[in-house]
Amino acid sequence: MQDLYPSRKSQEVSIIPRKDPIIHAGEGQENHSPLSQEQINSYEKNGFLMLENFFSETEVKEMSKEIYGLADEYKQSDKPEVVREPTSEEIRSIFAVHQNSDYFDKVSADQRLLDIVNYLLGGDVYVNQSRINYKPGFTGKEFYWHSDFETWHVEDGMPRMRAVSVSIALSDNYSFNGPLMLIPGSHEHFISCIGEAPEDHYKKSLKMQEFGVPDHDSMRWLADEYGISVPTGPAGSVLLFECNTMHGSNSNITPFGRNNLFMVYNSVENRLVEPFSGAAPRPEFIAARKKLPVLG
Amino acid sequence: MQDLYPSRKSQEVSIIPRKDPIIHAGEGQENHSPLSQEQINSYEKNGFLMLENFFSETEVKEMSKEIYGLADEYKQSDKPEVVREPTSEEIRSIFAVHQNSDYFDKVSADQRLLDIVNYLLGGDVYVNQSRINYKPGFTGKEFYWHSDFETWHVEDGMPRMRAVSVSIALSDNYSFNGPLMLIPGSHEHFISCIGEAPEDHYKKSLKMQEFGVPDHDSMRWLADEYGISVPTGPAGSVLLFECNTMHGSNSNITPFGRNNLFMVYNSVENRLVEPFSGAAPRPEFIAARKKLPVLG
Repeated sequence: MQDLYPSRKSQEVSIIPRKDPIIHAGEGQENHSPLSQEQINSYEKNGFLMLENFFSETEVKEMSKEIYGLADEYKQSDKPEVVREPTSEEIRSIFAVHQNSDYFDKVSADQRLLDIVNYLLGGDVYVNQSRINYKPGFTGKEFYWHSDFETWHVEDGMPRMRAVSVSIALSDNYSFNGPLMLIPGSHEHFISCIGEAPEDHYKKSLKMQEFGVPDHDSMRWLADEYGISVPTGPAGSVLLFECNTMHGSNSNITPFGRNNLFMVYNSVENRLVEPFSGAAPRPEFIAARKKLPVLG
Repeated sequence: MQDLYPSRKSQEVSIIPRKDPIIHAGEGQENHSPLSQEQINSYEKNGFLMLENFFSETEVKEMSKEIYGLADEYKQSDKPEVVREPTSEEIRSIFAVHQNSDYFDKVSADQRLLDIVNYLLGGDVYVNQSRINYKPGFTGKEFYWHSDFETWHVEDGMPRMRAVSVSIALSDNYSFNGPLMLIPGSHEHFISCIGEAPEDHYKKSLKMQEFGVPDHDSMRWLADEYGISVPTGPAGSVLLFECNTMHGSNSNITPFGRNNLFMVYNSVENRLVEPFSGAAPRPEFIAARKKLPVLG
């Protein structure tokens, strides 16, 4: 398959214009949209949409109970789906929760969410990845700028930009507890990252920059051109963001943690192929390849 | 001298009520205040005050030119006043700029600033510390919660809470580029930190927490009780904060750096004595002990 968005293959940085629609629903389908025209326009323009108080307080309480229940259940587990802090045994993430928990399987098929996702992606979808993130206060680490699509394309073989991430906030998101920062409009540009240098360029390359991360000049250009958005909102809010929207987060020294449930929906027309890096695929719980239940 | 605010001396955490006034100007001096009554009340209640656009655009340009000039001048310097990034030769801070630069000496004696500081501290003052902070974008590191007074008391021998920090923003401060976070009202409480354990308690102590930093429970109590404030404002804004106000900052992965000029004014009635830790004093450029020009 042709690589429409090459990345990590060259020693040069480049910016490739997006080659895919943002709203994949066809013409004439506007009437089926569960979002208002204003919301659709905002998602199309910015590459993300915050839906405040999408889930009720009761639902948030239930989900919170379930995520702590799972953390308890997996406390001693050595499953690879359970990711722990590097310096302690504390659980940082649990992957594939829609497969390992009946409760989160149901949440992933929530019809209110699916109506939106089906519309944005123009048809049937499946869950490409799901995870719970436990982000404790005081020690929350920063997460550098990235486009999820860049990783999913290179490492997982996602061919086109036709996926959307759904982050359900299970704690209040303030401006100061390490919330997601997004560059509105960045989804229109694919920032092709610098690749691993041939071995004899090893030292030079290391001095230049890390590979697989967007370069400073491109980031400066994006931020100057579009600014930075920091959507905040109470627990129960849902942030939808397009797979190529540039995002990252600063660290969090406040006592206020930030738990969330994170699910990636991919169009059934956009199933994973061989990774464009040429390397072996990542594990199934990070990027689903098996035929999974189609949600529509 | 009696230690009114013991810290790092015990294995127990404790919270000591403030024993000093916040506004040191005497009764009847209200008429001499360069601040409005509302501003005074706000500083007294919150422990900080943001003065937006205190310096003009022209002044900001001039100061910015001077800070880059100094960075150039000190590029190769091995003076201890010049603090560099741990992993590069880039300059992070230059201390004692009011002594090493005629220009910043003049800024430190700016009459508009002094009128305020003299009022807050109730009389003549001197510059206890000054520095330029160069905070580049992308790699700005977090700075964990602390009360400056705790450090200045323990390590420098500042007897009482009668000092104020002045931070002049030379770049725009957004909510997302690692701005200072403060706990309004925290200046009313001295969070006494846990001390270095006797050697036989070494391992236990390390597991408990670091010494010289406020413990999680106290921080949680402060944040729950008072919340967290993040004053933002354009370059040229001045943030005044009381020496015991708890503050810190998250990291900054955005391209937007955050340079500032930082000056600490201390009352001449509150000159440094021997450090309350019993250790040797820190260098003069960090904490002034020599008889310095009195500003009033």
